[in-house]
Amino acid sequence: MLSFGILTRMAKTAITPTRSENYPEWYQQVIKSADLAESSVVRGCMVIKPWGYAIWENIQKILDGMIKDTGHKNFYCPLFVPLSFMEKEAAHVDGFAKECAVVTHHRLEATADGKLEPAGKLEEPLIIRPTSEAIIGDLYSRWIQSYRDLPLLYNQWANVVRWEMRTRLFLRTSEFLWQEGHTAHATEEEAQAETLLMLNTYVDLLENYLGMPLIHGEKTSSERFPGAVSTYTMEMMMQDKKALQGGTSHYLGQNFAKAFNIKYLSAAGKEEYVYTTSWGVTTRLIGSMVMMHSDDDGLILPPKIAPTHVVIMPLLRDDQNKDKILQYCDELLVELQSMSIKAEIDASDMRPGEKAWGWVKKGVPIRLEIGAKELEQQSVYMGRRDLPYKEKKGMSKTEFLNAANDILLEMQDNIFARALKFQQDNTVEVKSESEFYEFFNDKSTGGFTIAPWADEPASEEKMKQELKVTPRVLPHNRADDRGTCIFTGKPDAKYTVFAKSY
Amino acid sequence: MLSFGILTRMAKTAITPTRSENYPEWYQQVIKSADLAESSVVRGCMVIKPWGYAIWENIQKILDGMIKDTGHKNFYCPLFVPLSFMEKEAAHVDGFAKECAVVTHHRLEATADGKLEPAGKLEEPLIIRPTSEAIIGDLYSRWIQSYRDLPLLYNQWANVVRWEMRTRLFLRTSEFLWQEGHTAHATEEEAQAETLLMLNTYVDLLENYLGMPLIHGEKTSSERFPGAVSTYTMEMMMQDKKALQGGTSHYLGQNFAKAFNIKYLSAAGKEEYVYTTSWGVTTRLIGSMVMMHSDDDGLILPPKIAPTHVVIMPLLRDDQNKDKILQYCDELLVELQSMSIKAEIDASDMRPGEKAWGWVKKGVPIRLEIGAKELEQQSVYMGRRDLPYKEKKGMSKTEFLNAANDILLEMQDNIFARALKFQQDNTVEVKSESEFYEFFNDKSTGGFTIAPWADEPASEEKMKQELKVTPRVLPHNRADDRGTCIFTGKPDAKYTVFAKSY
Repeated sequence: MLSFGILTRMAKTAITPTRSENYPEWYQQVIKSADLAESSVVRGCMVIKPWGYAIWENIQKILDGMIKDTGHKNFYCPLFVPLSFMEKEAAHVDGFAKECAVVTHHRLEATADGKLEPAGKLEEPLIIRPTSEAIIGDLYSRWIQSYRDLPLLYNQWANVVRWEMRTRLFLRTSEFLWQEGHTAHATEEEAQAETLLMLNTYVDLLENYLGMPLIHGEKTSSERFPGAVSTYTMEMMMQDKKALQGGTSHYLGQNFAKAFNIKYLSAAGKEEYVYTTSWGVTTRLIGSMVMMHSDDDGLILPPKIAPTHVVIMPLLRDDQNKDKILQYCDELLVELQSMSIKAEIDASDMRPGEKAWGWVKKGVPIRLEIGAKELEQQSVYMGRRDLPYKEKKGMSKTEFLNAANDILLEMQDNIFARALKFQQDNTVEVKSESEFYEFFNDKSTGGFTIAPWADEPASEEKMKQELKVTPRVLPHNRADDRGTCIFTGKPDAKYTVFAKSY
Repeated sequence: MLSFGILTRMAKTAITPTRSENYPEWYQQVIKSADLAESSVVRGCMVIKPWGYAIWENIQKILDGMIKDTGHKNFYCPLFVPLSFMEKEAAHVDGFAKECAVVTHHRLEATADGKLEPAGKLEEPLIIRPTSEAIIGDLYSRWIQSYRDLPLLYNQWANVVRWEMRTRLFLRTSEFLWQEGHTAHATEEEAQAETLLMLNTYVDLLENYLGMPLIHGEKTSSERFPGAVSTYTMEMMMQDKKALQGGTSHYLGQNFAKAFNIKYLSAAGKEEYVYTTSWGVTTRLIGSMVMMHSDDDGLILPPKIAPTHVVIMPLLRDDQNKDKILQYCDELLVELQSMSIKAEIDASDMRPGEKAWGWVKKGVPIRLEIGAKELEQQSVYMGRRDLPYKEKKGMSKTEFLNAANDILLEMQDNIFARALKFQQDNTVEVKSESEFYEFFNDKSTGGFTIAPWADEPASEEKMKQELKVTPRVLPHNRADDRGTCIFTGKPDAKYTVFAKSY
């Protein structure tokens, strides 16, 4: 009956509904089945559960190393931004005013009927940081005096709050975790180089570790960060062919320097405003990774990000061999760990099929079943997350240990290649407005279009209203091409990627 | 004139005022000179600057490893606690009501005169977590169903807010960083063992990494965490002989289980409340380390916590050798790094004396000056932070590299031994109330007293009012001793440590 149960499950899928049945609900179910996170009772916030948080820790560790290797240092700034600071940069406060959590009191007091209510009203309300340009602008205005203090290359890992009305786990939550880099430079050239350096750092992280192909380039004017001169982005195609932004790097020019009076004395003895940048990626990366890689059996994790590469499941059917099987598993664990492969033993008291499917849904790359037969033959019985559940394979322990690292690298490459092919297969260059509308009106196609566009508001507003499509990015790999705008007929228009997006 | 300038500075001290002149102000100046942190414009908050944050990262890395090695997993819970959750455990909300930052609105709106003000009033105010027992109690009530779900061993690294009226960098700030462990167990014994396991983990961190001797044991009843059955603490003696609490581990019994309805079905099929614990250490550890180890020349860092072990300072007086000296420094850097010694080169454009004193004040264990002479002789000129500035010593590069790890270990041991001796020299066992009052009334002594005490409120209130002294801890190493209470004459009183405290 047990094996029949498993067969039934395989005939269906581990996740209900499937991607094709209901993509948004499939996403929620993949997260639930992998036990990554859940919604909090506090509206719009999420609880990141251990398996999800371990993925975030892996992302942090890799990115933190990259940030430090490029000469940045970590620091930590306060959670609170005085309201008056938020107001200093006009575009900035406009961009965030509608989604600010505001602290107005600093204690609780009992009312006559014994209930507690806010008391100790603050003289000036405090905003919970939606981002830290304002608080850091004030700091830099005091820390920077001379050209010797530049460049200032700092980063912080922190929580931020943007009060979102429609939330979705990882993709859009009122509180999220991120890193935010904030740098100040003596020249425009240096600041622009920094903005692109950090964009490229993110590209490295996303492509080579998270296995996510992307299109990087500049944002169009309407999609810029509030207060930025230019915003660079990475746009990725999800399996429903919608775009998701993977992170941004902003060149802020002297906007914040002027708003916060950040000046330095140049080598020539002249007082000048600095040029600043900011750049960040968030826990949203986890959501995009789930959406891009997972299948109808649940989460698929790129090995370089997986909290566990190999799960070892002892099959303890007969008590006689129990200790020996567990010892064999322990030895295997130690051998894998000595190869820098993250392995764990799951000796929990569950039916073998249920246990194995649990690890499929959690996206662990390699599963090993170890029973009396494997002990006797000094072998392993291996399942791979990138192959169908039934395609398990027995091999000698030595053979497995020799192959394990290569299998993981191969899976990493395959995950990237599959996503890249999907993106390329669903990206079309269109030559006219009618082709553009045809593409997005046809529900069976969808994806990204590329076309020359004059970055003007009327066509943007129209496509937004009629198609829910927006310009996503001016791709760097087409930066030198120009064409005739398909909407306005204007010449010398830049090639732009359009899509429906998250 | 340069060398005269340095000599003058040495004859004085690098920090003004000295410890004996004004201990609290000396503490602020040590932090400022080492560039560890500064006060924020937001009342009571601090900015942790890169050198201070690097120390916190080192503490995190070590402790996080210990927390995981003892079977705990990290997760992340929301910043916000609904007011109604805070109210569920009566002692808990009483303990925190006076220091809660309260979010009441979720956006900003322009008034008629163009100013922004809070808008979008929340139906229920949200408290910024002062600690997360309440939000986690709610989660655990849903996550725990059966004995198979136990023990639940989770930890989070987070920021918390307690609105403090009198603040001091690191020691008491409105926002601070910490880790908070929250565990749930099937039995009282298991939960108590967990509470002590984590206390011992903290003892390991403080004594063996931060070089801080301490007295650990249970808190007296008045000093317990709001809602706890018992609180365990580590009390450390600062150089002004006052006590500072280094971290706490709480056994919460079934108080939170009952308040939040956290029940499990036992193996015998019976519904039972769980037993919970919580435990945390904060960025306060940095403040206590500064206060305990530093001297009148600034910060002293235990090597195991120092962001940099060795700073290499090239002396580039003559251009002719410049490249060769820098190359020699680079080689030295690589050799030290290959020995897992954290080294950096400071080739900044500063006068040599000023530069060296900068690193003294930052507490770097070993300073190397490398000029033409050292290049020629393949030697180093070494200064140690635990020796007077002038006692610098030349030695061959090989000799230095062979000795470097031993020097660092020796400094680590010396720092601990010196602090332990100070604590022991200033801890006195007293036999009577009059001896007790004499000890604390004499301004030339001060420190810790140990005496049997019946844990009763009248004597506690009196010593608090008259001496500003409080019971700090029932030391574990005297747990089996009993005596006659020196205040009440009651028999079988436990030995208690008393002190003025931070």
